[in-house]
Amino acid sequence: MDAAEAATRLCALRLRDDDVQALVAHFGDAERRGKLAHGFSRVEWLESQSFDPTARPRRVVAEPGYESWDGGGGLGYLVLETIVQAQLESPPEHARVVVARRCFPTGALGYWVRRLAEGGLVAVLASTSPRRLPHPDGGPALTGTNPLAIAIPSSDGRPIVTDVSMGAVTHGDVLRGEARPEELVPFGGDQAHKAFALAVGLELLVSSLAGEEHGAVLIVAQPDEDPVPAFRVLAAGRRLPGDS
Amino acid sequence: MDAAEAATRLCALRLRDDDVQALVAHFGDAERRGKLAHGFSRVEWLESQSFDPTARPRRVVAEPGYESWDGGGGLGYLVLETIVQAQLESPPEHARVVVARRCFPTGALGYWVRRLAEGGLVAVLASTSPRRLPHPDGGPALTGTNPLAIAIPSSDGRPIVTDVSMGAVTHGDVLRGEARPEELVPFGGDQAHKAFALAVGLELLVSSLAGEEHGAVLIVAQPDEDPVPAFRVLAAGRRLPGDS
Repeated sequence: MDAAEAATRLCALRLRDDDVQALVAHFGDAERRGKLAHGFSRVEWLESQSFDPTARPRRVVAEPGYESWDGGGGLGYLVLETIVQAQLESPPEHARVVVARRCFPTGALGYWVRRLAEGGLVAVLASTSPRRLPHPDGGPALTGTNPLAIAIPSSDGRPIVTDVSMGAVTHGDVLRGEARPEELVPFGGDQAHKAFALAVGLELLVSSLAGEEHGAVLIVAQPDEDPVPAFRVLAAGRRLPGDS
Repeated sequence: MDAAEAATRLCALRLRDDDVQALVAHFGDAERRGKLAHGFSRVEWLESQSFDPTARPRRVVAEPGYESWDGGGGLGYLVLETIVQAQLESPPEHARVVVARRCFPTGALGYWVRRLAEGGLVAVLASTSPRRLPHPDGGPALTGTNPLAIAIPSSDGRPIVTDVSMGAVTHGDVLRGEARPEELVPFGGDQAHKAFALAVGLELLVSSLAGEEHGAVLIVAQPDEDPVPAFRVLAAGRRLPGDS
């Protein structure tokens, strides 16, 4: 599937034109970065989902250092698109915590924080998704794969973008038969308790602030410093998180 | 060393009485949790360090959703002690980002976020420390072990406390001869790029907000929900992060 086919099929779902454009931009970026589970394959998946194509996310609380949003039954991608645009239009003087209730699916979190960093903001984003990861000792799935994304702007125009899922493989890998279901565990092998602990912390962070349904928590801040260029010098050309 | 000897030796460093009590409480808690590298062994280390025992951390910016503190040349432990007390005394209405410049050492981060959670606040804390972790491809140390701590209060009185360092072993393990220097790498084995990416993201998050010297970034928030009791039911008695 290419961008044109994706746009055509998304239009047929009765999504608004600007929403279609936002989705195609996200899926296309994921394709270019090799994150195929977040790419155009999601169009077919969306065709099988139930959602309100006309829903608009609503900003329920707006204070200088805190915002709360409600996804309103629409797609999480479009909730984050709206939130990212709102932060870039009205950035915090210092820092702001943004909570998004009913925000699923959220796609490749690195995409959203990268755009904030390209707009000059430091950004940290976590979100919840269906429970897939068991305790390292076994048992039922307790947490989502719960990625954590962190982006830092840089005066050299090349932000650093961390986007790490706590799973050893992705759910998409399992769906495509590229990994066995029992491989979908916290990453880290004999230190999987570390990734599990991070997944639990992020799961409960988001659910304590954004509620029982899947949601997201974003922190945006104005950088006081510009550490990335010196860090790249220290790394001496080695590939850093988010580099293509 | 026990608490009494620790207190006596810390007094001899000309620290104030309440600062001595705060340090002994932190070291004692680390001992009880088996985190010996953060325990009373630190007293001897402190005796070898240069710091201003009379320094007081200073709140430079105080807004409802943002605070900036300067450690002022004192011990990072006491900067975090002061910040934790200040948050518990004046919690945010919704959420607050707290940046601490010149804040080193910060000890066991789980200790600080646990106290905030015991006071009813959701807390996330990251801090920087000397560079110890190389890129998974090798080369010089690029980041600290950069722990991330997350604590979630619970109506059952048992908060969940995640406190995860990105290193496969601790620097303390190496100092005590329990690990070889070359084992001090990002955890995760063949997925060490994930822990490295988290270490880089946290390193640059803190340094972009708190400056070149070691610092810390804390997020505190009022929980809207109480997800921990149901999560413990789902986990069916399995040990969860922060359980003793």
